[in-house]
Amino acid sequence: MLFIVGLGLADERDITVKGLDAVKQSERVYLEAYTSLLLVPKEKLEEFYGKEVIVADREMVEMEADKILEGAKERDVSFLVVGDPFGATTHTDLELRARSLGIPVRVIHNASIMNAVGACGLQLYRFGESISIVFFTDTWRPDSFYDRILANRREGLHTLCLLDIKVKEPSLESLARGRKVYEPPRFMTINTAIEQLLEVEAARQQGAYSPDTLCVGVARIGSDTQRIVAGSMQQLLDVDYGPPLHSLVIAGNTHPIEDEYLRQFSVAAAAGEATAAATAAAGQK
Amino acid sequence: MLFIVGLGLADERDITVKGLDAVKQSERVYLEAYTSLLLVPKEKLEEFYGKEVIVADREMVEMEADKILEGAKERDVSFLVVGDPFGATTHTDLELRARSLGIPVRVIHNASIMNAVGACGLQLYRFGESISIVFFTDTWRPDSFYDRILANRREGLHTLCLLDIKVKEPSLESLARGRKVYEPPRFMTINTAIEQLLEVEAARQQGAYSPDTLCVGVARIGSDTQRIVAGSMQQLLDVDYGPPLHSLVIAGNTHPIEDEYLRQFSVAAAAGEATAAATAAAGQK
Repeated sequence: MLFIVGLGLADERDITVKGLDAVKQSERVYLEAYTSLLLVPKEKLEEFYGKEVIVADREMVEMEADKILEGAKERDVSFLVVGDPFGATTHTDLELRARSLGIPVRVIHNASIMNAVGACGLQLYRFGESISIVFFTDTWRPDSFYDRILANRREGLHTLCLLDIKVKEPSLESLARGRKVYEPPRFMTINTAIEQLLEVEAARQQGAYSPDTLCVGVARIGSDTQRIVAGSMQQLLDVDYGPPLHSLVIAGNTHPIEDEYLRQFSVAAAAGEATAAATAAAGQK
Repeated sequence: MLFIVGLGLADERDITVKGLDAVKQSERVYLEAYTSLLLVPKEKLEEFYGKEVIVADREMVEMEADKILEGAKERDVSFLVVGDPFGATTHTDLELRARSLGIPVRVIHNASIMNAVGACGLQLYRFGESISIVFFTDTWRPDSFYDRILANRREGLHTLCLLDIKVKEPSLESLARGRKVYEPPRFMTINTAIEQLLEVEAARQQGAYSPDTLCVGVARIGSDTQRIVAGSMQQLLDVDYGPPLHSLVIAGNTHPIEDEYLRQFSVAAAAGEATAAATAAAGQK
C-alpha cells in the first residue's frame, strides 16, 4: 500500500492519528520537501515517528518514482506531504504511477493553506480562484495573476495569493556550467509579494487593486507563532511578519461579520498593542 | 483555554495528534453537530477519547455559549468541529465571545471538504466561488447559486456545491403549534442536487450548465467507502452514491492532467467495472 499522508501546516503533531498509524506501519517513509515546508526540521519528525525519514526532492519524485514505490504492492510505504496531499499537482503523478503498477493507494487528508486561510476571518466560500506569485527576476516578471485578481475583485471575491518557495533550485550559473550547484532556500515574504503586486498594477493600470485595497497577511498559520495582520496593501508593506511561510489574501467585498472578525488583526490594533506595550515598558522605568 | 478542534472528515482517527492531546486534557468536550457530521456516531468518539462528549446543537451554541465557555479561563474546554473549524461561520461567534471574556483560544486545523475535494483530481486553485444548494420546498426554491455558477463557468473555473444538511430542524407544523418537534435528519444526495440544478437551468436558460456538463460526484470523502464518480450531469443523475455525506463539483475548463486523473472515476469506467464484475459472477455459475 502507498499511503500519501498530509502532514498539516506547522509541526510534527499536526499529523492525524490515522496518518501516524500509516507512518508507523510503513517500511519506508518519504517526505516531499519542495512544494512546501513544515516549520520543524526532518529530525523532529524522525524522533516523533521513531523511524528514518527520507527527504524526496523534485528530482527524486520525478525521476525515481519507481524506487519510491519499490515493494509497495506487498509492503507499506508512506509518502508525506506538507498540508494536504492534493495541494500540489506533483503527487498525482506518483499516485497515477502507483495505480498503473497495481499498487493500492490510500490518501490521508489534512489541513492546507487552501482551507486554513479561513483563520483570517474571511469566509472560504467567498474566495475566487487562487493565484501564485513567483519571485520576479530581471528578465522574468510573470503577471498573469493580475487578470485573475481582477476577475475575482469584479465579483467581490477574495483572492488567496500563494507565495513562491525556492528549495533546492540549481543556480543559473551552475546550469550553464553543466554541474548543478543549488541556491540557498528562499521564501517570498508578504512584503515582497505586495511590492511585486503594486509594480504590476502600476504597469497594467486596470484597477484590479490599489495601495488602499484591504489585504490580510498570514504567516506560519496553525503554529504557536502564527501572525495575521489586516490592513491596506500600503500599511501591510512595512509590517515584519517574521519567519516563513507567508501567504497573502487580497480581500473582495467584505461582510460585516468578516469585518468584525478582521478587526482583531488590524494594523491599527497591532500598533495599539505595541504602543500599549511601550507605554507599559516606559511605566516600569 | 478554549480549543476549537477540527475533526477532519470521516472517523475518530482523522483528528490530529495535537487535537487529540487537547481533547484529552480538556475538562469538557463539546461536539458541534449541525453544520456537518462525522461518519461515525458520538459513542465511537467517546470510546476513542476515553471521555464524555456533549453534543452541542445550534440552539445550545447560539443561546448557551457562556455555559460552554464556563471556567475556560482557568481550565481547558474543547469544542469539536467536523472538518476544519473555519468551514462554517457559526464558530466565529463562539470564538469572538470567548475572546471578549478574556478566554485564550487555540484553533487546531484539519482537512475539510473545501480542500479535500482536490481528491477528485480537479485542481483546487482552479475552483471559483463555492455554493450551497438547499432542499427546495413547495414555496422556497432559492436559486441565487445560479449566477455564481455562471460567473465561475465563464472564467473556466470549477464550482464546489455544498449540499444541504438538515439536523434537528423543528417541523413547520410543530412550530405552528408552539411546541418544537424535530424532523428526522436529512442529507441532500448528489442526485437531488442535480435535479434541482437542472430545474433552475430550465427556468433561467442562461446556459450556466446543461445536462451534458462534466461534473464529479463525491461521497464520504476521506473514508474507506469514499466514492468519486465523474460524468455528465445527466449520467450522474442515476448513479447510486450510497450513504451521506455527498458533494458535487461542476467542472469548468479542464486541463489534460485533470482529465487523465478524472478518467479513473468516469461513469464509463465504473460501468466497465460493474460489467466485469457481472461477467465474473456469471462465469462462476
